[in-house]
Amino acid sequence: MYLLNQKSTVEAQAIQAKKAGKVLSLLSTEDKNHALYTLAQSLEMEFEFILSANEKDLQAGREKGFNEAYMDRLALTKMRIFEFSDGLRQVAELDDPTGKILLSKTLENGLEVSKISVPLGVIGMIYEARPNVTVDATGLALKSGNAIILKGGSSAINSNRAIVEVMHRSLSDTKIPKETVQFIDSTNRETSQQLFTMREHIDVLIPRGGSSLIHEVVSNASVPVLETGVGNCHLYIDSEADGAMALKILLNAKTDRPAVCNAIETVIVHQDWLKKHKTDLIHTLVQNNINVHGDEHTLAEIPSAALADEQDWANEYLNLNIAMKVVQHVDEAIEHIECYGTKHSEAIITENGETAAHFMQRVDAAALYHNASTRFTDGGALGFGAEIGISTQKLHARGPMGLEALTTVKYIMTGNGQIR
Amino acid sequence: MYLLNQKSTVEAQAIQAKKAGKVLSLLSTEDKNHALYTLAQSLEMEFEFILSANEKDLQAGREKGFNEAYMDRLALTKMRIFEFSDGLRQVAELDDPTGKILLSKTLENGLEVSKISVPLGVIGMIYEARPNVTVDATGLALKSGNAIILKGGSSAINSNRAIVEVMHRSLSDTKIPKETVQFIDSTNRETSQQLFTMREHIDVLIPRGGSSLIHEVVSNASVPVLETGVGNCHLYIDSEADGAMALKILLNAKTDRPAVCNAIETVIVHQDWLKKHKTDLIHTLVQNNINVHGDEHTLAEIPSAALADEQDWANEYLNLNIAMKVVQHVDEAIEHIECYGTKHSEAIITENGETAAHFMQRVDAAALYHNASTRFTDGGALGFGAEIGISTQKLHARGPMGLEALTTVKYIMTGNGQIR
Repeated sequence: MYLLNQKSTVEAQAIQAKKAGKVLSLLSTEDKNHALYTLAQSLEMEFEFILSANEKDLQAGREKGFNEAYMDRLALTKMRIFEFSDGLRQVAELDDPTGKILLSKTLENGLEVSKISVPLGVIGMIYEARPNVTVDATGLALKSGNAIILKGGSSAINSNRAIVEVMHRSLSDTKIPKETVQFIDSTNRETSQQLFTMREHIDVLIPRGGSSLIHEVVSNASVPVLETGVGNCHLYIDSEADGAMALKILLNAKTDRPAVCNAIETVIVHQDWLKKHKTDLIHTLVQNNINVHGDEHTLAEIPSAALADEQDWANEYLNLNIAMKVVQHVDEAIEHIECYGTKHSEAIITENGETAAHFMQRVDAAALYHNASTRFTDGGALGFGAEIGISTQKLHARGPMGLEALTTVKYIMTGNGQIR
Repeated sequence: MYLLNQKSTVEAQAIQAKKAGKVLSLLSTEDKNHALYTLAQSLEMEFEFILSANEKDLQAGREKGFNEAYMDRLALTKMRIFEFSDGLRQVAELDDPTGKILLSKTLENGLEVSKISVPLGVIGMIYEARPNVTVDATGLALKSGNAIILKGGSSAINSNRAIVEVMHRSLSDTKIPKETVQFIDSTNRETSQQLFTMREHIDVLIPRGGSSLIHEVVSNASVPVLETGVGNCHLYIDSEADGAMALKILLNAKTDRPAVCNAIETVIVHQDWLKKHKTDLIHTLVQNNINVHGDEHTLAEIPSAALADEQDWANEYLNLNIAMKVVQHVDEAIEHIECYGTKHSEAIITENGETAAHFMQRVDAAALYHNASTRFTDGGALGFGAEIGISTQKLHARGPMGLEALTTVKYIMTGNGQIR
């Protein structure tokens, strides 16, 4: 009985979202921007209320013994709240992605054809620890004219509830109905699963988090999914790579923020380069506490490395471990990436333009780098404005997804009695 | 044991397709076009071989007592073969959708960013009776640099096998590896189901056929799906609709080709218009053998009509039956469409521009018509070139899908040592 009621609740919320989304979709850009500024101000004014809710989550997290990286993702500070609030203002400054005329022509029979960008409708956002996603995703959804259903991780439930409470109060002072933002106030796994199949009410699901969350959604949802972010990224250092550049990029791509999806997990090194730069490479790795798990060729050169197994090649470490493979040809690197890569970001360091072009053409991934760090795969860093996630799928949107990824199109045909 | 072997066969074919697709993806536009012209010529030269295989399917179909419309979809003639062969030449004439630079910019740090269209990879096409889909889909796939796995309906197996045999022989004279075109030579349902979950080898599934086929694929596939074509389309005749225009469009949209997805299934009539034009409407319906299933208001005006039930509103007739509802306001029509429409094509007939704009803004569908027939929702009719299907989903592609829908993008970043 409890489950039945809860199912009805989630479905009722989805229906509310759809209805409110229709009102939102008819609002002007100015009305939407005004609402975003209002939201930003409210979140800043009520930062203490949000922080005290966050403290409950942190307390529970400490009791559960979550690791440091996890606690860091969960933790809010006044500065973090002001950062995500300000993110709403930045979204307000971006172009409205809806109402754009993408095509306009008149057929020989006089029928006028136009293709116009419109909101998707209702977005289901399923995410993990970070409470800032609650605000980031809401801002992008509202700006693009979409309602949003938020299902955050159970460890952040108090923070998320407080943030949504502030946003709901704040939306009452705007033209956007507060029902456009629905919060699944439950730590129950079944409530997310209910979202998976609500094809009638939800237009797209966006899972954002670790690989097991994304796998669960992709495998079980009949609602279309925008798959984000598992990044088993590789850096290939070619025989003709500049030594200093290769080491600088390796260090940045591995250590700048090891826990994010655009960090590298494996370095593939050409044997000729390795012979020449072994001492510097080992020095760089040791100095920066990077632990190597290598193939046999690696171990022959770096005896302190552990022997890599299948898991080392296949999984994201998200920490200062790195897998290392030695190859004799760029094609071996390409084959390894094809086998283990997640089509996120892959890089080659080489001074040889032809080798780089060969790599770019043959590697199948959202983002490919020649002589630059994979860390740039990010809507902000690439100058695309805010992002709702990084797509590792091929349909609809690939790579960093901004406002445009939250729209679809309508073909509008105007005639004066045309028949076929 | 048998099933195990068959699974291996389908998987082996998918792996072959992926490998061959990589070779195809590197070919020039000229090489791909040359192959399409070669295929067209071969199919025309071997039309008798194809016709004799088709005769076996027709014979089996007659024995199974398939209805006339089904047999018509299955039947090939010399003319039909020449039509689909010529379709390949038309595809050759279209722009290559791959290798297009969709964005190109240099960031402040000097990193050059470009976004380039590339093939999806491997397309799984699951379809029903029409053997022409075998050729149409192959042509679009090859032109866009994709390998294709063809799983046609069991009733057309002999025709499809013969067509693929001719195409395979013909591809040996071109640079496109024949392994880019894989034919699942089985009438076994399980072989299509095996395609549903091969996420590693297949990039997209395109089901094309009746609603039960599409439903099966959408509900069970973990491979991304491009959903096509169930069209429960409506025509709304407003109080301010021109009488003659409304009747002309009603007739065309219902009777021109009742079995296709862009034909209308329901007419929604404003009561004021009905009062004025009742005699002409009844005359038109009777003269053209259109059977009406109406709501109570309809029955009050047209006593010969049958009473419509839930099925009449929800399902495609695909024949000369039509459902009819009488309303007092355009919003009632919009609500009905929202409840029963499949987001394919919806039309309004009115002389009032504001009412039309209201309808266009609020109805959620791929194609919306003001004073024109829904029959124009078709890549050819709208001048978009060939189409692989009409998308009724919102992600990736909506409405008629041409070559562009078979591509994705790569971001290519070129630097000189940039790090974050």
